[in-house]
Amino acid sequence: MTAEHAPARWKAVVSYDGTNYGGWQVQPGRITVQGKLEDAVEQLTRKRVRVHCSGRTDTGVHARGQVVHMDLDTRIKPHGMIEGLNRYLPDDIRVESARIMPSTFDARFSATGKEYRYFIWNGPVLPAWARLYRAHVRKPLDIAAMRDAASVLTGRHDFSSFCANPGHERDPVRTVNRITVSRRGPDITIRVDGEGFLYKMVRSLAGYLIRVGQGDLPVSSAHAFLQSRERTARVPTAPAKGLFLWRVRYGRR
Amino acid sequence: MTAEHAPARWKAVVSYDGTNYGGWQVQPGRITVQGKLEDAVEQLTRKRVRVHCSGRTDTGVHARGQVVHMDLDTRIKPHGMIEGLNRYLPDDIRVESARIMPSTFDARFSATGKEYRYFIWNGPVLPAWARLYRAHVRKPLDIAAMRDAASVLTGRHDFSSFCANPGHERDPVRTVNRITVSRRGPDITIRVDGEGFLYKMVRSLAGYLIRVGQGDLPVSSAHAFLQSRERTARVPTAPAKGLFLWRVRYGRR
Repeated sequence: MTAEHAPARWKAVVSYDGTNYGGWQVQPGRITVQGKLEDAVEQLTRKRVRVHCSGRTDTGVHARGQVVHMDLDTRIKPHGMIEGLNRYLPDDIRVESARIMPSTFDARFSATGKEYRYFIWNGPVLPAWARLYRAHVRKPLDIAAMRDAASVLTGRHDFSSFCANPGHERDPVRTVNRITVSRRGPDITIRVDGEGFLYKMVRSLAGYLIRVGQGDLPVSSAHAFLQSRERTARVPTAPAKGLFLWRVRYGRR
Repeated sequence: MTAEHAPARWKAVVSYDGTNYGGWQVQPGRITVQGKLEDAVEQLTRKRVRVHCSGRTDTGVHARGQVVHMDLDTRIKPHGMIEGLNRYLPDDIRVESARIMPSTFDARFSATGKEYRYFIWNGPVLPAWARLYRAHVRKPLDIAAMRDAASVLTGRHDFSSFCANPGHERDPVRTVNRITVSRRGPDITIRVDGEGFLYKMVRSLAGYLIRVGQGDLPVSSAHAFLQSRERTARVPTAPAKGLFLWRVRYGRR
């Protein structure tokens, strides 16, 4: 290695269809997004490096704008990095953009916020073309009730009741900037924007809001669940396939 | 068979993801949408009948609203038909609705019009989640030019230049009621509404409009191609995966 080619810190925005992956993180015996990306980097640059993400996604969860970083000693230009990695990646993982950043940039620790979107098909039959990217809810959802409950959940709270491993987080307090629920025909989208999230928190919020929308839980339960700080079976984790990591924000908090 | 259970003519609206099928029509050695539907009908009703569609779709083409008919001697109610067929169908084929019609109803011959939609991703990288349902066009498309060419193609014309088997159609004249081209960011949609279509006509129109949008052909070529009534390599057939049979119209012409 010469001074001219010291490793540079690369940032890349990556989309993936989580259907065929055992989540983000490399694990023995599993095909993972991280593994596929590290393989592609090795094929392109002949170097095996670790690819770090803004936050792991679980099995079956999708990403429109996952952000990753990695250190690479290469003369490849950003355009060549995008084209090159996509040549070696399967078409359900795509590098959307890539650039060199200051070495202090960290996909996870530099992030100041994230937006997730949860997609629901609210109708009797889940159409063929929507099957991979929507949770299916047959019973008509009461959007107004979902919005009311969402507004109670917005803000800085202890989200232990909406976390899949309560008690295992050192600090279960998180700030949710905004939750919106929108409908276009049978297509319902829950947008959740926050500074950070607990384990399976977005799917728990979605699962909870679906129950409220179905009339299984009253809007008043939102406050009660926040207070209880205890996960119960009344807050289900909504299916992975409805969830997209939509974008990661960097910059001023 | 008793008089009470004479076969009834059923109409069903079906969606499918064409990715994993060799098109609509039953063919030896191929997995087809028609074959899967006839299998499901047989599993549900213990009867093997022919399922007729409004118009065959090619390998890889999708449908949001294909319409089919079939004759069935069964006591099953519409709701049970939908639920029952979907139980036996793979999840990339869905029966969206089903009802009993007068015996004169024919999915193909009663149709008075059809709408197809052709979806294009116009950007440098085709996102992972769009890969199955969009054609990918890297070069920025000139939507205004595409619209101008589309307006020339609208109306009643001899579409031999936009047909994959010119000379094999008894009557190559068709009426296209409307072609619209819309853009939302990198997502471009071509909607084609007509009374009927020649073989691969919509994909040929889409392929042609893409070439116009890329600046490879001038808008004036639209009139020239209609006049020539001859298919040339300058009119490509756009990829199957971008095409959806969107809806079939019945009723007054």
